[in-house]
Amino acid sequence: MGNSYTLDLDRNAANHAPLTPLGFLERAAAVHPDRVAVIHGERRYSWAESAARCRRLASALQRHGIGKNDTVAVMAPNVPELFEAHFGVPMAGAVLNALNTRLDAATIAFILDHAEAKILITDREFAPVVEPALAQANQKPLVIDIDDELATSGKLLGRMNYEQFIAEGDPSFASNEPADEWDAIALNYTSGTTGNPKGVVYHHRGAYLNAIGNALAWSLPHHPIYLWTLPMFHCNGWCFPWTITALAGTHVCLRRVEAGAIFAAIEREKVSHLCGAPVVMNMLLNAPAAQRRDIKHPIAMMTAGSAPPAAVLEGLEGLGFSVTHVYGLTETYGPAVVNDWNEEWNARPCRRGRSRASPARRRRS
Amino acid sequence: MGNSYTLDLDRNAANHAPLTPLGFLERAAAVHPDRVAVIHGERRYSWAESAARCRRLASALQRHGIGKNDTVAVMAPNVPELFEAHFGVPMAGAVLNALNTRLDAATIAFILDHAEAKILITDREFAPVVEPALAQANQKPLVIDIDDELATSGKLLGRMNYEQFIAEGDPSFASNEPADEWDAIALNYTSGTTGNPKGVVYHHRGAYLNAIGNALAWSLPHHPIYLWTLPMFHCNGWCFPWTITALAGTHVCLRRVEAGAIFAAIEREKVSHLCGAPVVMNMLLNAPAAQRRDIKHPIAMMTAGSAPPAAVLEGLEGLGFSVTHVYGLTETYGPAVVNDWNEEWNARPCRRGRSRASPARRRRS
Repeated sequence: MGNSYTLDLDRNAANHAPLTPLGFLERAAAVHPDRVAVIHGERRYSWAESAARCRRLASALQRHGIGKNDTVAVMAPNVPELFEAHFGVPMAGAVLNALNTRLDAATIAFILDHAEAKILITDREFAPVVEPALAQANQKPLVIDIDDELATSGKLLGRMNYEQFIAEGDPSFASNEPADEWDAIALNYTSGTTGNPKGVVYHHRGAYLNAIGNALAWSLPHHPIYLWTLPMFHCNGWCFPWTITALAGTHVCLRRVEAGAIFAAIEREKVSHLCGAPVVMNMLLNAPAAQRRDIKHPIAMMTAGSAPPAAVLEGLEGLGFSVTHVYGLTETYGPAVVNDWNEEWNARPCRRGRSRASPARRRRS
Repeated sequence: MGNSYTLDLDRNAANHAPLTPLGFLERAAAVHPDRVAVIHGERRYSWAESAARCRRLASALQRHGIGKNDTVAVMAPNVPELFEAHFGVPMAGAVLNALNTRLDAATIAFILDHAEAKILITDREFAPVVEPALAQANQKPLVIDIDDELATSGKLLGRMNYEQFIAEGDPSFASNEPADEWDAIALNYTSGTTGNPKGVVYHHRGAYLNAIGNALAWSLPHHPIYLWTLPMFHCNGWCFPWTITALAGTHVCLRRVEAGAIFAAIEREKVSHLCGAPVVMNMLLNAPAAQRRDIKHPIAMMTAGSAPPAAVLEGLEGLGFSVTHVYGLTETYGPAVVNDWNEEWNARPCRRGRSRASPARRRRS
C-alpha cells in the first residue's frame, strides 16, 4: 500500500525547527517590545528589556564556561531573576535546576551534588540554609547572589551579585536553539517522600507542549496579567514562565504568598490569572477584612491537587474568582488533567442546596 | 561538559506519543459528548455522533483495502462528509486529498492520477466536472457519492452513496495512531499557476502544531461556533477542522458562500468565528439590506492574503466584525504570519481621518 509521493516526505526531525519555548521570548520582544513583561515591586521590565536581561544571563553563563547539559541551580522565591533563568539558562544550552526553597541544608546539599551544579544563583534570604548546604556538598559551584531590595534578611555568600554577573553578558547574545528538541531544559527534584529526592529531566519539546497546553486548557487570552503565587521552583511553575511569555503577558512577581500582598497586587496590577494550591484559596478566604479588596475585574484561578471542598470553591467564587481545577505531577511538567467545565453543571445544586451558578462561574460559558 | 543524569533522557521519539490531531476528536467525544459538533441545515451531530461517523468512515475505508499512505480524494463543498474525512481518512492510516472544487475536469484528472487516488468521495453537484475527469484519468478509484439533500443539481456517479458506505463501518473502530508523527495526513495541490498542480504533503505533526497555533494566534475560547466560509479544501481549511475540534467547538457547514446564507447562519447559530478571503468581506459589506442582519453578539473574522483596504476593514467593523489579518501558503498549512494587534494602534487615525478604535476593535484589548 502507499504512494510514491509520500517517499519524498522528509522524516528527519534534525532538519526541522525543534520544539522549544525559547522562541516565545524572542517573539514577545520583537512583536510587543514595549509591553510590560515583568513587575516586581517598583521594578518594571518591558519585553525588550526582559529579553535583553535573559540574553545577558545566557552570555555571562557561557563566559563562565557553562554549556550544553551543564546544571545551573537557583534558590529563590518568585523574583525576576528566577523568571529570567527559565530562558537565560537554556539559551546558554544549560539545564535549570530550580530548588525547592522549603528544603533543609542536607537535602539541598544532596541535590547540588546529584545535579552536579556548576553555578548556584541564590537569594540572600536563603543564606541560613544555603551556607551550610554549600559546606556539606562535595560540589563547589560558583555562587552568585540575588540581592533583592525586597528581601528582609540574609547575607551575601557569593563572589558577585546577579546584576554584576549579567552586566558582563552581551544583551544581543544569539540564543542557542537546542540541536535536538529532546535536549534537557530543566531538572526538577521530587520531594523525596520515600528517600532522597529524585531528579526529573524536562526536555525542550515537553516544555513547549505543556506551556501551550496550559494556554489551551485554561483558554488564556493574549496578554494575561499573571500573579506568581505558585512557586516557580514547583515543576517550573507548571511551565507558566513559558506560557505567559508565549502570550506576551505580564509576570507579576511576589516574594511571599500572603493574603494582603495577593489582594494588593490583584488590585494594583489588575491581575487576570493566578495559580495556587488549595491552601492559597483558604488563605484568601480567611483573610482579615483589612487585607481584602473588592475585585472589580474578572480573575481566574487554577488550583491543583485534591479537590477543594465545595464551600471553598463557593467562597472563592463569591470573592470574584473563577476556579479551574487541575492535577499533575513533577513527572508530567505540572498539570496533566483538567476539570474542563461543562455548561450543564451550572444548573446543578451545590452541597449546601444553593445553585453553584455564581456570576463568576457563569462567565465561563 | 554535561552531566551523567542527562544520559538517561530517552530521546527516541518512537517511544513517545506522536503529535497528531486525531486525539482531538476522541477527546471532544469523551469530554463533551452531547455538545453540538456539526450543523448542516437541519442536520445536527453531537460530538459522540460525529466521532462515531468518523470511526465508521475509517472502518469502511479499511474494509475496502485502504491503509497506510493510500490516498482518499474528496470533491465536495463544506459539508459534514468533508469534515468527517479530515478525521476518518487519517484514522484509517490514509491520506486525505481534498480537491479544489473550482478546477476543471482535466486538472482533476491530473490530480487523481498524480495522487494515485484509491477512493473518490464526490458531491453530486460536481458531477459535470467529475464525470469527464474520471473518464480522462488513468486511475480508477472506487467512487462514493455524497447525496446531500441541500445539493440543487448533479447526479450520482458511484457504486454507493456515503451513508451506505459508512453504514458498513464499525462505530467503535479504534483509530490508528500514526506510527510516526511525520507520517502523511493530507495531500494538497497548489493551483498550478506555473504548470501542473504540485502536491504538498502535510504530516500529522504539522497538522497538530498548526491547528494549535490557530487557537493561540486568534485567542480562541473553548467551544467557538465556527462558520465554514473558508473552503475546507483550501490547505485543509487552514487546519481549522482540527482546531475547532481541539476546542470542542461547533462546525457550522455552508454549501455556498453567499451573503444572505452567511448572515442567516450567524444569526441563527450565534456564530462566533469565521474565516474568509477579502472577497468574502466585500460580499458582506455590499449585501442588499434584505440579506443583512444586525449582529448582536461578538464575532471575529480571520482574513488572509493581501491587506484589505482600510475602508473594507472599517466597514466590517461597523457591522460588528473584529478582523484579524493573516498570511500563509499551501506549503505552510495555511496561515504562517499574523497581524498581532497592538493596543496603541487603537488611537491611530484611519485614512479617512476618523479613529479606528471601533467597539469591535476595542474588544481586542
